[in-house]
Amino acid sequence: MKKWLVTGFEPFDGSHVNPSAQIVTALSSFYPTESFHGIILPVETRTAPKVLVEALEAIHPEAVLCLGEAAGRTAVSLERVAINLLDFRIPDNAGEQITDLPIVPDGPVAYFSSLPVRQIRDALLEEGIPVELSYSAGTYLCNQVFYTLMHFLSRHQWNIPAGFVHVPSLPEQAVKRHPLTPSMSVDLDIRAIRTIIQMVEEKTP
Amino acid sequence: MKKWLVTGFEPFDGSHVNPSAQIVTALSSFYPTESFHGIILPVETRTAPKVLVEALEAIHPEAVLCLGEAAGRTAVSLERVAINLLDFRIPDNAGEQITDLPIVPDGPVAYFSSLPVRQIRDALLEEGIPVELSYSAGTYLCNQVFYTLMHFLSRHQWNIPAGFVHVPSLPEQAVKRHPLTPSMSVDLDIRAIRTIIQMVEEKTP
Amino acid sequence: MKKWLVTGFEPFDGSHVNPSAQIVTALSSFYPTESFHGIILPVETRTAPKVLVEALEAIHPEAVLCLGEAAGRTAVSLERVAINLLDFRIPDNAGEQITDLPIVPDGPVAYFSSLPVRQIRDALLEEGIPVELSYSAGTYLCNQVFYTLMHFLSRHQWNIPAGFVHVPSLPEQAVKRHPLTPSMSVDLDIRAIRTIIQMVEEKTP
Amino acid sequence: MKKWLVTGFEPFDGSHVNPSAQIVTALSSFYPTESFHGIILPVETRTAPKVLVEALEAIHPEAVLCLGEAAGRTAVSLERVAINLLDFRIPDNAGEQITDLPIVPDGPVAYFSSLPVRQIRDALLEEGIPVELSYSAGTYLCNQVFYTLMHFLSRHQWNIPAGFVHVPSLPEQAVKRHPLTPSMSVDLDIRAIRTIIQMVEEKTP
Repeated sequence: MKKWLVTGFEPFDGSHVNPSAQIVTALSSFYPTESFHGIILPVETRTAPKVLVEALEAIHPEAVLCLGEAAGRTAVSLERVAINLLDFRIPDNAGEQITDLPIVPDGPVAYFSSLPVRQIRDALLEEGIPVELSYSAGTYLCNQVFYTLMHFLSRHQWNIPAGFVHVPSLPEQAVKRHPLTPSMSVDLDIRAIRTIIQMVEEKTP
Repeated sequence: MKKWLVTGFEPFDGSHVNPSAQIVTALSSFYPTESFHGIILPVETRTAPKVLVEALEAIHPEAVLCLGEAAGRTAVSLERVAINLLDFRIPDNAGEQITDLPIVPDGPVAYFSSLPVRQIRDALLEEGIPVELSYSAGTYLCNQVFYTLMHFLSRHQWNIPAGFVHVPSLPEQAVKRHPLTPSMSVDLDIRAIRTIIQMVEEKTP
Repeated sequence: MKKWLVTGFEPFDGSHVNPSAQIVTALSSFYPTESFHGIILPVETRTAPKVLVEALEAIHPEAVLCLGEAAGRTAVSLERVAINLLDFRIPDNAGEQITDLPIVPDGPVAYFSSLPVRQIRDALLEEGIPVELSYSAGTYLCNQVFYTLMHFLSRHQWNIPAGFVHVPSLPEQAVKRHPLTPSMSVDLDIRAIRTIIQMVEEKTP
Repeated sequence: MKKWLVTGFEPFDGSHVNPSAQIVTALSSFYPTESFHGIILPVETRTAPKVLVEALEAIHPEAVLCLGEAAGRTAVSLERVAINLLDFRIPDNAGEQITDLPIVPDGPVAYFSSLPVRQIRDALLEEGIPVELSYSAGTYLCNQVFYTLMHFLSRHQWNIPAGFVHVPSLPEQAVKRHPLTPSMSVDLDIRAIRTIIQMVEEKTP
């Protein structure tokens, strides 16, 4: 098994949980510690990229998967595109709110995911897990972390499988919203992410 | 514990599963057999009411819960209203398709559920299970069974808690649809229906 | 042409306009005054039924169409069922908020619309106007007025075409909401309601 | 007034109309012919880019706006990002269907719109026209034309305002779909595009 870095996020926007953090915690006890390095990122535009980059440099992973919650979505979303843009509808956990700024001034407009997203999608559908290819990871922390990841790998010419996956809200989060959002159980999330890791192991060199 | 009749439906519309049948099967092994009578109804407009009425007469239950799948919904739906109307968008499993006919000619326009739906809703929200009060059970088999149930109880003056609950599609059903529908895991469905049964036990005489 | 009573509602829930009122005003100048009686109802649970009943008694119409706005809907909704229930998610314009009370204690559970809703639907689809049959007019003022109308006609045995139609929000209302709701232009609303009136003229005795 | 190139698309996917073509036709008679050059592009992946590039070279516009229909959207969508990817859910009008190919091999991953999209959004909201910033123009012909446009301008260093705007389906298209999609009247589309042109005139040098 490759050496993996898998990240989740802290809760945000008034929620007390975040499925991405629960998934990382659950998977940490599932995989051998030398192969699976899980970290939880702050939902803070100033610190999240630093924490990610420090982890990349410290762990030197062979595959990276960043996870986040996408309220309102009905399926596991395999993000294909990270864009060089910050535009926050709500403040981050440090109270910072940004409108229309680049993540990396003079950085490229966008990066594609280097995960085998179509093969992953087909495998998840086969398993009966709702999944979709997504062409926008938003313009908040999730996209920022995704872009930061791909930009770091590009500049350092680390040619490894890496990407971002959004999961729906948990049922206990959905009940707090009006109108109710769709949701997905954390058990199904965990099955999905395990399949994603397995597909990357099988389909990438 | 009261003597319960709980019904689900066979698969329909090209699906090979139906969450309502899976719930009934799972609950059958959870509750004592003398208290819990589970049956699976055919998705056939001519036979479903007969099978239900025969079960009511044979079992003489003290509480009745009919379950069905509602594709496209994101939450457990506590149906409040059964209407005296058949209007099928797709044929039933026997190939019959009906437009704008009454279920019971000269029957009342509608019946309300006699379940304590608001208390059930509050209990499910408390548990973190997505739930909503619903004012339309559709005009297909689910509504037909719901109306048939309430009409039978009314005519026989059985003053017992009885009603209908819709559950979302299962994840493995949602992946077969374009666009993907919302879905709910059967584990969460089962927790929901157990809570509903418990609330009826606590809140009704 | 029959003698018509057509009602709309005042703005509510923080909006400064209501498409149903704009439609009534526009149609008032289109039809002859002896045939078309348009009134705007208050969004107040205590007064709206009185204003409606007074208009019914004063005008003695041969056909009645009540209109209201349904935020979130994408199509003209031909309501089929009025239920005997008040349950308000938001207060009315007088600040009154009601949970789970009947409109008419000991009144029937529900009434069906007496408009030729299916023929109206087919005519609107033919014209390219988004339309749907709807089985819930909600549990707020719209349903209250609809139920009050059908109950009055039933008790007085006025066997006339009467019903309720919901229209989507106007574009200028949709922009004020997060997330944006679907909307429909008032010009299209007006074409829809004119077609409805024409269909009732043609299809009912 | 700048010299404008504005493009729409032919009907596709079984439809007999396309709002983007109707808008281009309507605007052609509104603006002076020397300032407004409207063309209708084929929904064909092989020919659409050629037709666009020939028009760019022939007309040498000072501003470019490409328009397309986005079924299922509720608002005018100001597209911010064109990506270098073709992935068709349905064949184009010539029967060609592509999975996961770049538009320009070795081209950049993406381009941003050079329209003042935020100022346009604010102006449209002010006017009461439903509008949203969008981060995905899809992976079909609309995105292909958008990417082709921005890539051409970049390679030729034409520093002009240019971008892509999606409009919802027309009401007469929405009625043909199950379930009904949201829709927008062509009159509102035309008002929206006129405001966009005016904002570009005012806000760009």
